[in-house]
Amino acid sequence: MDDFYMNRALQLAYRGIFTTDPNPNVGCVIVKNNHIVGEGWHRKAGDMHAEIYALINAGKNSLNATAYITLEPCNHFGKTPPCCIELIKSGINRVVIATKDPNPLVSGKSLTYLQKHGIQTKVGTMANEAKKINCGFFKRMKTGFPWIQIKMASSIDGRTSLLSEKKCWITDSFSRSDVQKFRAQSSAILSSSATVMIDNPSLNVRWNELDTNTKVILKKEDVRQPIIIIIDSKNKVTSQYKIINQSSNNIWFIRKNIKREFLSLKKIKQILVPTKNENIDLLKMFLILGKKQINKILVESGPKLAGALIKQKLADEIILYMSPKIFGHENKELFYIPKLHKLSEALEYKFTDIQVLGNDLRLILTPKKNI
Amino acid sequence: MDDFYMNRALQLAYRGIFTTDPNPNVGCVIVKNNHIVGEGWHRKAGDMHAEIYALINAGKNSLNATAYITLEPCNHFGKTPPCCIELIKSGINRVVIATKDPNPLVSGKSLTYLQKHGIQTKVGTMANEAKKINCGFFKRMKTGFPWIQIKMASSIDGRTSLLSEKKCWITDSFSRSDVQKFRAQSSAILSSSATVMIDNPSLNVRWNELDTNTKVILKKEDVRQPIIIIIDSKNKVTSQYKIINQSSNNIWFIRKNIKREFLSLKKIKQILVPTKNENIDLLKMFLILGKKQINKILVESGPKLAGALIKQKLADEIILYMSPKIFGHENKELFYIPKLHKLSEALEYKFTDIQVLGNDLRLILTPKKNI
Repeated sequence: MDDFYMNRALQLAYRGIFTTDPNPNVGCVIVKNNHIVGEGWHRKAGDMHAEIYALINAGKNSLNATAYITLEPCNHFGKTPPCCIELIKSGINRVVIATKDPNPLVSGKSLTYLQKHGIQTKVGTMANEAKKINCGFFKRMKTGFPWIQIKMASSIDGRTSLLSEKKCWITDSFSRSDVQKFRAQSSAILSSSATVMIDNPSLNVRWNELDTNTKVILKKEDVRQPIIIIIDSKNKVTSQYKIINQSSNNIWFIRKNIKREFLSLKKIKQILVPTKNENIDLLKMFLILGKKQINKILVESGPKLAGALIKQKLADEIILYMSPKIFGHENKELFYIPKLHKLSEALEYKFTDIQVLGNDLRLILTPKKNI
Repeated sequence: MDDFYMNRALQLAYRGIFTTDPNPNVGCVIVKNNHIVGEGWHRKAGDMHAEIYALINAGKNSLNATAYITLEPCNHFGKTPPCCIELIKSGINRVVIATKDPNPLVSGKSLTYLQKHGIQTKVGTMANEAKKINCGFFKRMKTGFPWIQIKMASSIDGRTSLLSEKKCWITDSFSRSDVQKFRAQSSAILSSSATVMIDNPSLNVRWNELDTNTKVILKKEDVRQPIIIIIDSKNKVTSQYKIINQSSNNIWFIRKNIKREFLSLKKIKQILVPTKNENIDLLKMFLILGKKQINKILVESGPKLAGALIKQKLADEIILYMSPKIFGHENKELFYIPKLHKLSEALEYKFTDIQVLGNDLRLILTPKKNI
């Protein structure tokens, strides 16, 4: 039965996937005599935690009840008072958590605290699912790096566009709507000056383009615009492009040198990152972004940046929208990667999700070996 | 109920898919008082037709029974006596067929004949399924052309091999076993001199490599080796290659001029085909092959021949084995196709089948518009 209630708590946690960043998604269910007496989930940073919502919802029924929480409850005064104290106060006598807090500084401490106060605890119920829903938060807490997703769209022969057309939609509207959903879950969108200058994209979340199911979970007024991060090592991007003159998103430029023109614009920040062989050092860049609480990055770029990330084994997921078209060998490639000499050098992934979206396919791949 | 029994007849027809070529696959079920009293299917050319097997199986129970046949029965003396006469003799009083004979010279004639002899008839039950199982036979009878399948294997970025390795297996053993199944169903395998000289493939059916389910249907001694057809316009292929010195398959070379070296080899035939812009005229080649009773061709070649077939809209199906690897932009492409200038010029397909095979994906695509 623990799995059953934890699954419900995960469903609740899922409701926050578009809004809690940089906080993790958490759901909580209070169960007494095999009945759910209270439910809650975390909505956004600064707001009450999932446990508090559930305890309020349960009221006096919390006495001698079990709390199912998708993440170890906090035990420190942050923006809100510690959940551990509230759990103890409420009379809960058993706490089941899916997974410990990934932050090594606090991991396991709340559990010990609850035990000391006579509360029975259990850890590990649906742990993988709970980690997956917070993959960005977990990776950042454990490694310092954000979770990195590379989104690409191609024909079946691995071409991303026709060289002769400036911008073209390869995939159909279902795929494009799906991209909006990934954007809405990301802390930031990463792109390059080349993509800005060739495609002039907006890179923002457009609520209207989301599918109906997503609109039910995410109201228009709750849309959290991801930060747009542009690698612009040669200070090429000017104010003529859409990301600057049309979107309201904050923009972080990754640079070798400050660009004076943008110093007065409030929504623009310039981050200096060391170089490696003349290029921005991607590893160092991600560490810096991790320190700035970026949990999850969606890369929407051309073959050069995508290829560099693949080659350096920095991608956690590749999201490939594949359109059933053939473009032929003379058009733009998916990934620029220096020549491989042996099959054993090929970058190996596994298909972890395959979905039909309208006429297209969406393939999600993760590295075959842990990186 | 007609669908139910016809479905059973189709299942029986399916048992012949590896062996009946150049004849179509046919299944027959005899039903009396809602009981199946006889079943049969066509095994191979020269052997009895499905109807005869079923009538023998039913014996006296054929009297006043219904026969379900996946294809209009024959009414001419070929290698076997006409099935229509046997159906009438047996006392069958109703005949349900999935589809008329596609051969315009005989289509519908048997139906009229049966009706004249007082037999009730019905046409069109599960017609699409019945046509699909004989796609090669139907296409050849209606258009003169064989059904053309292009088989390719690639990484997710549309690369077929590493330029620096002479031959490499991109996909894993499940995919390679699956290819054997397609080969075993084909009248012929089409390839080019370039592929023979680079990969030195065998292009034959290797029973041992088939999956267990297929081995149940197809016994080792019943394996029908497809004809190997090699486009070799410059007479480059010598006897040093596997297809000539190792396989027992018949080989047809498509040439501009006869190659004297091969004239004495019994298993080798040389077919002269007119050229178009210096190259073999593919359209004319397929018409010639259709006249030689080639129903179904599996193309296993490199990007040049595959690209030419795609560009000329000659492919009925693309079977793409996709391995979750990335090779990068410097390796060999899937299809060589002259530069496209507009998105509207892209060759459009639809995904008709998507399957996971071990670590790989198998995508089957058919043209979006009828060609």
